[in-house]
Amino acid sequence: MAGGDEVSNKQIIFKDFVTGFPKESDMILSSSKIPLKVPQGSKAIVVKNLYLSCDPYLRSRMNRIPPGYIPSFTPGSPIVGFGVSKVIDSGHPDFKKGDLVWGVTGWEEYSLLTLTDGDILATLIKIKYTDVPLSYYTGLLGMAGFSAYACFYEICAPKKGDYVYISAASGGVGQLAGQYAKLMGCYVVGSAGSNEKVNILKNKFGFDEAFNYKEEPDLNVALKRCFPEGIDIYFENVGGQMLDAVLPNMREHGRIAVCGMISQYNLEKPEGVHNLFSIVVKRVRMEGFMVFEHYHLYPQFLELTHQYIKEGKIFYVEDIVEGIEKGPAALVGLFTGSNVGKQVVVVAHE
Amino acid sequence: MAGGDEVSNKQIIFKDFVTGFPKESDMILSSSKIPLKVPQGSKAIVVKNLYLSCDPYLRSRMNRIPPGYIPSFTPGSPIVGFGVSKVIDSGHPDFKKGDLVWGVTGWEEYSLLTLTDGDILATLIKIKYTDVPLSYYTGLLGMAGFSAYACFYEICAPKKGDYVYISAASGGVGQLAGQYAKLMGCYVVGSAGSNEKVNILKNKFGFDEAFNYKEEPDLNVALKRCFPEGIDIYFENVGGQMLDAVLPNMREHGRIAVCGMISQYNLEKPEGVHNLFSIVVKRVRMEGFMVFEHYHLYPQFLELTHQYIKEGKIFYVEDIVEGIEKGPAALVGLFTGSNVGKQVVVVAHE
Repeated sequence: MAGGDEVSNKQIIFKDFVTGFPKESDMILSSSKIPLKVPQGSKAIVVKNLYLSCDPYLRSRMNRIPPGYIPSFTPGSPIVGFGVSKVIDSGHPDFKKGDLVWGVTGWEEYSLLTLTDGDILATLIKIKYTDVPLSYYTGLLGMAGFSAYACFYEICAPKKGDYVYISAASGGVGQLAGQYAKLMGCYVVGSAGSNEKVNILKNKFGFDEAFNYKEEPDLNVALKRCFPEGIDIYFENVGGQMLDAVLPNMREHGRIAVCGMISQYNLEKPEGVHNLFSIVVKRVRMEGFMVFEHYHLYPQFLELTHQYIKEGKIFYVEDIVEGIEKGPAALVGLFTGSNVGKQVVVVAHE
Repeated sequence: MAGGDEVSNKQIIFKDFVTGFPKESDMILSSSKIPLKVPQGSKAIVVKNLYLSCDPYLRSRMNRIPPGYIPSFTPGSPIVGFGVSKVIDSGHPDFKKGDLVWGVTGWEEYSLLTLTDGDILATLIKIKYTDVPLSYYTGLLGMAGFSAYACFYEICAPKKGDYVYISAASGGVGQLAGQYAKLMGCYVVGSAGSNEKVNILKNKFGFDEAFNYKEEPDLNVALKRCFPEGIDIYFENVGGQMLDAVLPNMREHGRIAVCGMISQYNLEKPEGVHNLFSIVVKRVRMEGFMVFEHYHLYPQFLELTHQYIKEGKIFYVEDIVEGIEKGPAALVGLFTGSNVGKQVVVVAHE
């Protein structure tokens, strides 16, 4: 490696394993040097990172004992997550200098990426459409949006007229899931944690109804008010008490697609869910979802969703902070709901 | 009605709504009179009851507020449940005097039954095969066995080689579910509440492994011992802590078919289940089952299962008590696990 090509590289370092709510101080802004050339003969790629995606699942990687589907972060190494990047140098036949890509990268200005077939942590996809904001590939056209698509169409088994409930509905996944449901002709209700978010759900995304769960003394009462005939589809992003309130409100043969359980990620012991017998009473199907199993559907998702965007049928709200040093606060803020819409961190504008 | 045809009719009367564990004293042995002729012009049927079936779901009918799928019993009226009966008189075109039937009847010596299309509480099926014990139509060839069949084949999506776990495995449903799984080439483990039951599972039904859950200090450890590679199918009859222990032991794309949750029926508030995020981690499908939705499969169940019985491929253990007056104790005993095998009450031998 020619030392002359090295540049300084700001990084967000994962300090140590976390219990309870993550804090900004669990991550450290640091600086190192990185060569902007891939090692001779290597199939690696050097990228300049443009946008980083804050996603709830990152919390699971901060545990000492990972939940089983994804390894923990390495203390002393940068946070790793989805992002949008530009290829600076490539030894890989599928990527060349100047390509815009989205996929798994480091929380740093530049990353050296090694792609291994079948490694879900080494996803890198060349960006096809650049007539939309590039930041959309952290969310709307990236992992979050694609999760909404695959979970809604593959797991929820939606039909026109279904009563659909979406929790964490203004988040990166929820807002799109709700809009797909509306486009299918479903009745869609979302919940979120502030009146501002509720307003966005109703007035920007066209949800039929929405409520601020923090202002509802009884979630069961709120759900009965919004769904007097019950819920056909629950797009689950929250877990715990919310799930417990939803269960007795499900309709016969309802579907609960479990995309996430953000309310549980910071608890040492998850809350107990008591109303599972409702699954029998209403013959409910509850099914877990993870996006990496559905990557083969990405092209069809991209075509449909890009078209919807161009036709003005889908909107997306992003909460964008400028500067990699804002990354830790942005990530931590997900778990208190301080973000309004999909949380994005700008590292550089190309 | 001609008074001359009236006979005395012992009945088990439901006294009042129950909270907590049911007690024998929640039911009263009583006697009334019943005419053995159907009212002139009526399509009703008078039956002589032979065998009564004790099933865990009956507990839900003892609640003041029913769980939603089946109405509560009426205080002062007889217990109603599945049984085997002989037609004494019939105004219904599908049934004639002397027919042997199984279906929903009263806990009494004689019942006047009115069949209403679509009423799940008015199921009556003519018995086709009498070369097996008639009591089998309370269990093996009745609702319990048919539940095992429909829940296993329709909800569990079984494949040869699957790792199958069955709780309450020596009960009326569990024992048959396990034998179907064995016949399909699955690896089958069952749990039950006594060493006698465990012995039956292993030595009579051919389960690969079985354990006494009451003697296991840690259910998670027991499951890991029996399923070092995890569980593909959990046939759920128990709920609560058992479900919580199973969840982290599920394999990817495992199925949890919820047939019942007997451990929860007597609790004022069901136990909290904490490990539901495992549904995401392993992309588990959990689905509720109720037998009445599958009645169209009864003929194929009957042919298959009758053939298995005749070929000696399936065994069934019944716990038979003689005399309708033993009914309350037998029913109550289900919830402490005092029955060994399917609990049946003999009212009369034809």
